[in-house]
Amino acid sequence: MSHPRDTLGQRMHAMVERLYPLCRSITGDGVRRTLEIIDESIPLEISEVPTGTQVFDWTVPAEWNIRDAYVKDSDGNRVIDFRASNLHVVGYSVPVAATMTLDELRPHLHTLPDQPDLIPYRTSYYAPTWGFCLREDTLRGLRDGPYEVVIDSTLADGHLTYGEHVVRGQVSDEVIVSCHVCHPSLANDNLAGIAVATNLAQRLAGADPWYTYRFLFAPGTIGSITWLARNADRIDRVRHGLVLACAGDAGSLTYKRSRRGDAEIDAVMRHVLRGSGRPHTIVDFSPYGYDERQFCSPGFNLGVGCLTRTPYAGYPEYHTSADDLQFVVPAAMVDTLETCWEAFGVLDRNRRYVNLSPFCEPQLGKRGLYGSLGGRSDTKQAQLAMLWVLNLSDGDHDLLDIAQRSGLPFAAVADAATALRDAGLLKESASAGSPR
Amino acid sequence: MSHPRDTLGQRMHAMVERLYPLCRSITGDGVRRTLEIIDESIPLEISEVPTGTQVFDWTVPAEWNIRDAYVKDSDGNRVIDFRASNLHVVGYSVPVAATMTLDELRPHLHTLPDQPDLIPYRTSYYAPTWGFCLREDTLRGLRDGPYEVVIDSTLADGHLTYGEHVVRGQVSDEVIVSCHVCHPSLANDNLAGIAVATNLAQRLAGADPWYTYRFLFAPGTIGSITWLARNADRIDRVRHGLVLACAGDAGSLTYKRSRRGDAEIDAVMRHVLRGSGRPHTIVDFSPYGYDERQFCSPGFNLGVGCLTRTPYAGYPEYHTSADDLQFVVPAAMVDTLETCWEAFGVLDRNRRYVNLSPFCEPQLGKRGLYGSLGGRSDTKQAQLAMLWVLNLSDGDHDLLDIAQRSGLPFAAVADAATALRDAGLLKESASAGSPR
Amino acid sequence: MSHPRDTLGQRMHAMVERLYPLCRSITGDGVRRTLEIIDESIPLEISEVPTGTQVFDWTVPAEWNIRDAYVKDSDGNRVIDFRASNLHVVGYSVPVAATMTLDELRPHLHTLPDQPDLIPYRTSYYAPTWGFCLREDTLRGLRDGPYEVVIDSTLADGHLTYGEHVVRGQVSDEVIVSCHVCHPSLANDNLAGIAVATNLAQRLAGADPWYTYRFLFAPGTIGSITWLARNADRIDRVRHGLVLACAGDAGSLTYKRSRRGDAEIDAVMRHVLRGSGRPHTIVDFSPYGYDERQFCSPGFNLGVGCLTRTPYAGYPEYHTSADDLQFVVPAAMVDTLETCWEAFGVLDRNRRYVNLSPFCEPQLGKRGLYGSLGGRSDTKQAQLAMLWVLNLSDGDHDLLDIAQRSGLPFAAVADAATALRDAGLLKESASAGSPR
Repeated sequence: MSHPRDTLGQRMHAMVERLYPLCRSITGDGVRRTLEIIDESIPLEISEVPTGTQVFDWTVPAEWNIRDAYVKDSDGNRVIDFRASNLHVVGYSVPVAATMTLDELRPHLHTLPDQPDLIPYRTSYYAPTWGFCLREDTLRGLRDGPYEVVIDSTLADGHLTYGEHVVRGQVSDEVIVSCHVCHPSLANDNLAGIAVATNLAQRLAGADPWYTYRFLFAPGTIGSITWLARNADRIDRVRHGLVLACAGDAGSLTYKRSRRGDAEIDAVMRHVLRGSGRPHTIVDFSPYGYDERQFCSPGFNLGVGCLTRTPYAGYPEYHTSADDLQFVVPAAMVDTLETCWEAFGVLDRNRRYVNLSPFCEPQLGKRGLYGSLGGRSDTKQAQLAMLWVLNLSDGDHDLLDIAQRSGLPFAAVADAATALRDAGLLKESASAGSPR
Repeated sequence: MSHPRDTLGQRMHAMVERLYPLCRSITGDGVRRTLEIIDESIPLEISEVPTGTQVFDWTVPAEWNIRDAYVKDSDGNRVIDFRASNLHVVGYSVPVAATMTLDELRPHLHTLPDQPDLIPYRTSYYAPTWGFCLREDTLRGLRDGPYEVVIDSTLADGHLTYGEHVVRGQVSDEVIVSCHVCHPSLANDNLAGIAVATNLAQRLAGADPWYTYRFLFAPGTIGSITWLARNADRIDRVRHGLVLACAGDAGSLTYKRSRRGDAEIDAVMRHVLRGSGRPHTIVDFSPYGYDERQFCSPGFNLGVGCLTRTPYAGYPEYHTSADDLQFVVPAAMVDTLETCWEAFGVLDRNRRYVNLSPFCEPQLGKRGLYGSLGGRSDTKQAQLAMLWVLNLSDGDHDLLDIAQRSGLPFAAVADAATALRDAGLLKESASAGSPR
Repeated sequence: MSHPRDTLGQRMHAMVERLYPLCRSITGDGVRRTLEIIDESIPLEISEVPTGTQVFDWTVPAEWNIRDAYVKDSDGNRVIDFRASNLHVVGYSVPVAATMTLDELRPHLHTLPDQPDLIPYRTSYYAPTWGFCLREDTLRGLRDGPYEVVIDSTLADGHLTYGEHVVRGQVSDEVIVSCHVCHPSLANDNLAGIAVATNLAQRLAGADPWYTYRFLFAPGTIGSITWLARNADRIDRVRHGLVLACAGDAGSLTYKRSRRGDAEIDAVMRHVLRGSGRPHTIVDFSPYGYDERQFCSPGFNLGVGCLTRTPYAGYPEYHTSADDLQFVVPAAMVDTLETCWEAFGVLDRNRRYVNLSPFCEPQLGKRGLYGSLGGRSDTKQAQLAMLWVLNLSDGDHDLLDIAQRSGLPFAAVADAATALRDAGLLKESASAGSPR
């Protein structure tokens, strides 16, 4: 690859830094501005879906935008200030402008008593309410009031916004990479994922991939539901997929299997993670987490897994103000990206072949495919790989199966298959993708 | 439940005590009197099947009854006395009245040389003979004789007797609970099972169960064969079953799988026993043991397992006079009963649903099924259970599968399914039982 | 068996000793003479297949014969001498008669630098060249030359030769036992296999086996390919098979599964090896090793495994002059033979039955198949075996399945099945072999 690792990591971290201050939610200008920044690196096709649009069982909600919010004491000090951190406001808070005592305000205040120095992250998308999030330490210092309470927000007809970037492959069958873009100032969840996906898309563009790779940047849940509703009629194109989230913390990688559990992406990720020799975790599908919930709902049941580092709710910084720029490590984002890159490399070359000379072994020697001096015990990997590919290419095994069963590197197996195919000994079996 | 555990255990032990002295065999008045005592607690429908009736490959044998039996020495002492223990006579012994020396008598005497102070239990149902069982210690003390040898029995045309008690459920599909009633004074084998089954039936009567529960009290082997022969045309009603035996010793529970190995009762018992956190054993089916041999013969192959404590022939007291009233522990019978009760509770609520909104997740919030304030990490069990039920309700998974896969308690999963069904998000898939 | 073990082992070793000096290759008089010696014990049908015959993707090569070969120094001493060991010449060397320096000769010399006192074994069947194999120690002692270099060989149109011996069974379905006969003076690879196969064939002849057993003595790879090409139209007769190689070293037995992995021969070998209680290894199929490569090519995919002691390339003596007469141990050959004998005994009796009385257990007692005095805990193995056979004979389980599942010896299960069949309680299910 052309980018040195440190430069790549620094570039991704710089992107996280630019995106961090924006106040994103499931709709609104924070998402639009986020997509504009991504578009500077990879051109995006933007969709704006009107409030009220029915998407399966859901309805696209009113669009939420916010300009300012605070709680001001009688001395005029902002004791809670949206300008200091956009986490201070409960996402989708309705507008408020009132004066009230601390006791009246208290039901609208959210803290983390066990993490008293952190601001929690809270939203209320589908029940109209308002609230502030603050440090328990701050709350303890508040006097009785009265307080001036202002949330300068609008909740009105508008649009839900998402963006797509497509890297055309040799076939129209797609690999989807999906990132949620609905969280405000949380760096690992999910700005790191956005940065990894963006750089992955850039690198793929130069690689002439087999599959078409679609990168989806959409708000969580309602965004992927909207995308699925608008693309349901051509969902069969999506052959594989990966949801990217929590992609930058210092923990080791965690792959969560698709609902199928034995989808090709599941086999590929297991192969790559095991082959890495580094600590990692593979967990079964569960119906909570990120947008794999929607891709893997029983009606779609797509071969979509989820790659994170420390998973969903698995770290104390999760959904707090401690998920900040320091929490995201450049080298971790690079590791996530390289793992995806290796996985897509396997996915892209994985094929199912049929041996055209299935009765006994074909004579490799006369085709220049076999060492001529027999009787030596140092049979070579390339020759073993050819024997394995010939033996198992009966239409029931793909190259990854053969790599797993033989213990040989996937690349050696794929190279052997290419050599055998070029020698006329193999043909691709059906279902290897539709021409674009 | 309404009965305190000690009272329940004491009541079951009292039933064992009443049944213990009766001389049962595969036919005869001992069985009839046993069924009368059960009938005092739960009304039984009694069947009397005439000697000579063909039941599959078998023929109902002559009815055996016995009034007295002894071996008397020349001083008039009963050195072996049926009145002291009915185990002293080989079951189905033909009548005898003769005088003979010890050497002549010896071929008819059975002892346990390795357990010299215990009387063994022996029968000879299908080969006409007679014999006495006695302690090896007693045998060693016997002089040469002569002895007066009397067995005052009759073996004549009559009937085989069994009893049934049915607790009507909401559907006519049946769960069968079967206990053998053919052993004389052996407390654990099977008076404890009879006591547990009787009390289980009483408790079920007040519970308005889903399934119809049929309790069968029949002599071992020939009794269940007779029942199966007379009910073969409606055997499809039997969806699940449990043979109860050796239900009261102090050992831990043992569940023996049905022949199928993956029947629903097998999954339920595993779930309940594992969930108990207490020591237990689960073993594969084998074609010896109790009446599961007949229910699981290849022509029927019913989903019937066998629940015991220490299993068949697994304790030194097995089939000896040491299987007495002290060997049966009230708390053990209570534990067996409560385990069955929990298992039937799972079986009764286990269903297979189909998600009616399978494309993406349905919006639970608008139906009041989801907490409205998002972003909190303490997502609740009830909400997880709903997500799991929705995700796996594709007609291929029942609620027990979902409980196993999610690690959630079965009750939480079943409650979630009820809530989702009531909200119109699920429908029951077929095969949930025929209306009565 | 009629042969004491030591005599049998000595007889097999004597056969190895007779075969050892012959210079075998994939064609030529060494193979013919080897087959003549085998024919003295078991009559062989010999096939001679002309050079140039097309056999699947291969062509029968020119026939190679050699009379003498040496490298002679200027003093007239044969520093490398074919008469001392036929390993000294690279198999299929083209004729040469020249004088050259050591430097000119060196590209044609093969040694084992890590095993300096051993002569390696090398061939070059399909690329015309010539060469000598020698001890590294010898090479180090050679002066600059000049040397007289002679290989008095012919490589000309002729034949490929193989031999077959058939032991007729009660059905025409075949078990094939295959040994490669193409290696020169290597005792374990494969003279030990030849000796074991020959003696196995002799023993089977007196045993009136169920299957027809075909013993194939053919050169490796091209020989089995030739046999398969000439027998492809009746290959369906081959129901099971075993490749025998490396059958006489002191290591424990290794069974390599067929490509299917669950073929009947795989189950039989596992059963016999596990049942032996002795150390052994069972490995999955891989597409290198011996002629199982051809029998298990995807077009044939026969149920053919491979039995060796220390496997292919697994011992330092492999393909060197150290694989000599001392390396082969009579007791090891006897152990290999007895293991095959036991396996063939299981294979021959293994059947699939259908219980003709599948509803409840049939009454064994009235047929004299069951002990009459019930209630004893020492139920006998024979009776257990009958219950297991009756319970699992539903057409889905063969007797070996029943032995495995029950933990009973195969012979007990097979004896039970015979008794039940004779009593009219079982019938053989289809596919038990075609009458001859």
